[in-house]
Amino acid sequence: MSVTAARGFVAAGGAIGIKAARQLDLAIVATADGKAVPAAGVFTQNLATAAAVQVSREHLGRSEGQAAAVVLTSGNANAATGPAGVRAARRLCEIVAAEVGAAPEEVLVCQTGLIGVPFPAGVLDAVGPVVAARAPGARAGRAAAEAIMTTDTVPKEAVAYVDAGGVRCTVGGMAKGAAMLAPHMATMLAVVTTDAAAAPSTLRALLGGAVDVSFNAMTVDGCTSTNDTVLLLASGEAGAVPLDQLGAAVSAVCRSLAEQMVADAEGATKTARIVVTGAASDAEAHVAARKVASSLLVKCSLNGEDPYWGRVVSELGSAGVVFELGRTSVAYGGIEVCARGAAVPHDADAVAAHMAGKAVDIRCDLGVGQGEGAVLTSDLGYGYLDENRTTS
Amino acid sequence: MSVTAARGFVAAGGAIGIKAARQLDLAIVATADGKAVPAAGVFTQNLATAAAVQVSREHLGRSEGQAAAVVLTSGNANAATGPAGVRAARRLCEIVAAEVGAAPEEVLVCQTGLIGVPFPAGVLDAVGPVVAARAPGARAGRAAAEAIMTTDTVPKEAVAYVDAGGVRCTVGGMAKGAAMLAPHMATMLAVVTTDAAAAPSTLRALLGGAVDVSFNAMTVDGCTSTNDTVLLLASGEAGAVPLDQLGAAVSAVCRSLAEQMVADAEGATKTARIVVTGAASDAEAHVAARKVASSLLVKCSLNGEDPYWGRVVSELGSAGVVFELGRTSVAYGGIEVCARGAAVPHDADAVAAHMAGKAVDIRCDLGVGQGEGAVLTSDLGYGYLDENRTTS
Repeated sequence: MSVTAARGFVAAGGAIGIKAARQLDLAIVATADGKAVPAAGVFTQNLATAAAVQVSREHLGRSEGQAAAVVLTSGNANAATGPAGVRAARRLCEIVAAEVGAAPEEVLVCQTGLIGVPFPAGVLDAVGPVVAARAPGARAGRAAAEAIMTTDTVPKEAVAYVDAGGVRCTVGGMAKGAAMLAPHMATMLAVVTTDAAAAPSTLRALLGGAVDVSFNAMTVDGCTSTNDTVLLLASGEAGAVPLDQLGAAVSAVCRSLAEQMVADAEGATKTARIVVTGAASDAEAHVAARKVASSLLVKCSLNGEDPYWGRVVSELGSAGVVFELGRTSVAYGGIEVCARGAAVPHDADAVAAHMAGKAVDIRCDLGVGQGEGAVLTSDLGYGYLDENRTTS
Repeated sequence: MSVTAARGFVAAGGAIGIKAARQLDLAIVATADGKAVPAAGVFTQNLATAAAVQVSREHLGRSEGQAAAVVLTSGNANAATGPAGVRAARRLCEIVAAEVGAAPEEVLVCQTGLIGVPFPAGVLDAVGPVVAARAPGARAGRAAAEAIMTTDTVPKEAVAYVDAGGVRCTVGGMAKGAAMLAPHMATMLAVVTTDAAAAPSTLRALLGGAVDVSFNAMTVDGCTSTNDTVLLLASGEAGAVPLDQLGAAVSAVCRSLAEQMVADAEGATKTARIVVTGAASDAEAHVAARKVASSLLVKCSLNGEDPYWGRVVSELGSAGVVFELGRTSVAYGGIEVCARGAAVPHDADAVAAHMAGKAVDIRCDLGVGQGEGAVLTSDLGYGYLDENRTTS
């Protein structure tokens, strides 16, 4: 169950001819009755903004945080495509709006694929029938999740619940993304829906907090995409629940989707959670964890299952945070391999066994404060190169 | 000809048992008469500083910028090795000092290899005979350049000359480094010598300028090492030359050594020069060029000879500099593929032919100012992964 888990939402996935061979390339998520509901979005910080990001930002502004539908396409990023690309994104919204009975500014749009390739406007004629086939239920949600995949090998869905004072609300979401993934958003799209009642400003705050601990706390290749978008829509059909509980559920869904993305990272064989403690502040801990998580050399070591902690210490030392080598310790899977900045005797077989697993845990204590932070990453293997050497 | 090209310097390379199988692992560069001469150094900005960096910085301070010898070892970084590591680096300097007839603080030390592995202090007994074998000439210089190699496949040497008003002076240098290479120094060591006469403060200024346009204007993997050191020694035997000409010669030697390092980058099949023009400032141009040059996705495209300029534009947009997609253009080998932020018709065969070469030229104009900058990078291939998956 994903975007259709919460009451009041329908979805569909279909093929309109952006991708070859009739592969799924169009997804729709809409309110069941076509009425606009409170919505919020977080968008890429890349200034080479895709047409869809420009149009969705503008629509959310004009509708004052109300949306009736989200349309998503895969196979062409419609980024660096000039005015024609923006026109195509607007037209996509108009077609969906007419089909669901909403205003164009109540439709948001997400696109993913190759940058700089003109969007094939001819496919727009095929959009209407896919939107018309939208339906409630898990099967429709799954079709939508499949239709947004690019180099993803599996669809990504998540769901969480809130039970509070007799009100039970659901938060469900779907996402895509397997590379160009980095803090501050990456080629990743995510749509999260809930049947809880909440105002647009509340949704913005909840979504911002959730993104910080999920999509902005992971990295695959340090590349920030032109198209990143995370959207949250609230139908209100379940009624109001305490905001901290709703926020926790939204965060749980986003965190699950982020974890699924890192696990499906191009060519990855394992994930690693880099935890930094004892930093001067939480912000510095996060910066240091991100530096380790982004390191090509650390990621190579993960791929080779090599507990070469020297690379970890080197990255911590060049992270630009308060650091004293003589206070630094590093542990793999809870087994300390470096203390006070130098090697310590340890059970090398146990470390090797931990590194051989699918989920590696690396904890670094800087010994200079109370700050803590964590970033999720993947290893770097031949598969990433195979995927990205050529686009043809 | 390298560090022995300038008059007044001798060198040697030998094996002391840090590496297995009697491979060369100790290099010495010294003044011919053992007297200290003006010297300057630039060191890593990594706070996880190796013992050699700590000791060399201290020695340059205590000697007030005078050095009689540089001793370099390969096969063990002597970084994250605690107080025992610092003692070993000091002892190395003392042994060399006794051999050349200088004070210990007149000896500088550079080390490269694995981080976190205790330095094998037992090898110190073998240092004296190698130092005693120091000699002038190209053969001795080459032996020293070979003795500092780790994953390098070729030794790196460079020489430049200044002819000014009857005074002819020589600048020669050697370097090592094939990974953990990034702006702000990386696992790279370089020793540059000249027979020009110049004070330590002058040498510091010249070396800083040269490093900015060479070692700090390249990247292989974005990793900044614990051990990076560039040293410049001036024997003065040729007399004084105009400082701008001496600076140009030092920069030429450093630039050549940097280019040799990028060309020998682990697993690399080609180099690429990323030039950014039209930026708001030279500093912003450099930042943008570095962002493109560091991009995993751009480096994959280079390896696959794929002119996917969308990745270049995406990196420019996320570089944190003034950027407007509609003003941005990109050219490969002088052939414009993107103008005003969108694709333009171009000779795709000519671009493909340029990408297939060993030296790729990517020019990006941001169209917002007069700033210019360039960064040298390499492609990312299987070889880098093979080299770095495991250290054993």
